[in-house]
Amino acid sequence: MNAPNDLDGYRNILGDLPVPDARAIDAAQDRNAQLTKPPGALGRMEELAIWYCGWRGDAKATIDNPQIAIFAGNHGVAAQGVSAFPPEVTAQMVANFAAGGAAINQLAQLHGARLDVEAFDLDLPTADFTQAPAMSEAQFLVALKRGWDAVAAETDLLVVGEMGIGNTTSAAAIANALFGGAAEDWVGRGTGVDDAGLARKAEVVAKGVALHGNTDALEVLRRLGGFELAAMAGAVLRARVSGIPVILDGFICTAATAALERAAPGALDHCVAGHVSAEAAHIRMLDGLGKVALLSLGLRLGEGSGAATAIGILRAAVACHSGMATFAEAGVSGG
Amino acid sequence: MNAPNDLDGYRNILGDLPVPDARAIDAAQDRNAQLTKPPGALGRMEELAIWYCGWRGDAKATIDNPQIAIFAGNHGVAAQGVSAFPPEVTAQMVANFAAGGAAINQLAQLHGARLDVEAFDLDLPTADFTQAPAMSEAQFLVALKRGWDAVAAETDLLVVGEMGIGNTTSAAAIANALFGGAAEDWVGRGTGVDDAGLARKAEVVAKGVALHGNTDALEVLRRLGGFELAAMAGAVLRARVSGIPVILDGFICTAATAALERAAPGALDHCVAGHVSAEAAHIRMLDGLGKVALLSLGLRLGEGSGAATAIGILRAAVACHSGMATFAEAGVSGG
Repeated sequence: MNAPNDLDGYRNILGDLPVPDARAIDAAQDRNAQLTKPPGALGRMEELAIWYCGWRGDAKATIDNPQIAIFAGNHGVAAQGVSAFPPEVTAQMVANFAAGGAAINQLAQLHGARLDVEAFDLDLPTADFTQAPAMSEAQFLVALKRGWDAVAAETDLLVVGEMGIGNTTSAAAIANALFGGAAEDWVGRGTGVDDAGLARKAEVVAKGVALHGNTDALEVLRRLGGFELAAMAGAVLRARVSGIPVILDGFICTAATAALERAAPGALDHCVAGHVSAEAAHIRMLDGLGKVALLSLGLRLGEGSGAATAIGILRAAVACHSGMATFAEAGVSGG
Repeated sequence: MNAPNDLDGYRNILGDLPVPDARAIDAAQDRNAQLTKPPGALGRMEELAIWYCGWRGDAKATIDNPQIAIFAGNHGVAAQGVSAFPPEVTAQMVANFAAGGAAINQLAQLHGARLDVEAFDLDLPTADFTQAPAMSEAQFLVALKRGWDAVAAETDLLVVGEMGIGNTTSAAAIANALFGGAAEDWVGRGTGVDDAGLARKAEVVAKGVALHGNTDALEVLRRLGGFELAAMAGAVLRARVSGIPVILDGFICTAATAALERAAPGALDHCVAGHVSAEAAHIRMLDGLGKVALLSLGLRLGEGSGAATAIGILRAAVACHSGMATFAEAGVSGG
């Protein structure tokens, strides 16, 4: 399916989202009840497997083609001194992804996952959202489409991640606009700003939200987001349309995709939260989305690293569900 | 190294345990500080990788040969009606392991792990510990040695697991004897007993602890344990001697190996807790051991399933540590 040509096209999709396959869910639940284990003994892994089967429309689904799509963009707001690193690091890390040296490269290799890195023009950051909307509508559409088009046809599990100096500030502004509260509730140390940097981030977020916050959710993403955030949202929406379950990464990924959920409640039902990050506001946002993370390891790297680590959990769940013998097959008592 | 011939041999080993390689730890910490990520951004995964490198004596260690060793045994105490399943299920599940139909088979395959299943004579359960010590000293030595000998020479990461109808009762009795408190603090529903079964378990545990609890930790394991519990302890001790890190599984595995820690504080320093199970007393025991689980997914299956699921987390940590580029290698600013 092609990406929509305009924002109304995206709004139409959000207004008529596909739902999971009820027959596959029923059949997966039946199968789960017959597997050689005490009822419920695989805990949340059972729910995960049934959820995955529902979105795949297959009661004995497998995960054969995981894809990790990383989007990189620069942020005008970085000029406000909100990051511990200079904007050049975005391009340097994109080069590191290409050379295979980053954390996400190791995780993709470990899981046999396809890794795509989509860098926007890093010499052309978004506008500083304390001055103007981060993206024009045309730029926003390009970014959404780039995410939409990044999802491979054969993908059966998607992880989206990001790289962009300054993007925790953008994510905090989106979260504040979508979920309310004060700017201070949503800013954190990101990759490691000091106290003064943290105070600056809160000021910048408050200014951006005052200027742009009182709009609908997609407009919030356009005005306070960034290219890589919009692309993640586009990819996650495309996954929904294509019946591809998604593992959400950390604070930035969650903020970007929360805009979909706020635009259309249930829009993230095909997504599981891979991890809860060390960015304190992440758990606040997950609570707001009604999601419980699979992992809590204190990560705060981005790049899709937390979600990629969680691929192993989802794979374990699906492997048990689809590979185990039933009581009848195994001749075990008590099924 | 051969297994000791007598309990004094095990006590001698516990009295002079090998420690991790301090130079490898220093070198791994140095390396970690130079990797292309903000300091600490991989959170607990950084600590895990350095811990693993220390025990392997290699600052850039890899996990190439994970092994899952499952031990199965039957329990005289099962005659007291403490399980929702009949003792025949132990042998049926051992057959299911051999046929590849159990959860642990799927997890071993997913991780490319060697899987060994060591079943004790299932027609000869341990003695009912409410009447007599579960094992004679000769039986206990056989079980310890079977675990010791099950660890393969090439193994670089060990998971131990168990199957044995009635063994949550044995584990609860060990935990109560080692950590104190009331029997009710340590019993849970296991694979699914009802309220009456739960009350019986508490009575049985209290009786066993009154009869056998006031002894040293290895004696607690002999008198209240089971063949598969002793074997897990033997395997974990062998792993320590051979510099092999271990992922502990759930309630039963933790109880069995807690006897080592009580016999010699620090004896489980080469072990990480793979998961915290749905058996409520598990977290109490982990707290007592000062361990924080990697996963919390509500599992209560045994078979090493929680620890095997956590193999993916440890592998992710070690893959990032040993595979990532340094700032200098990647030409990234800010290292």
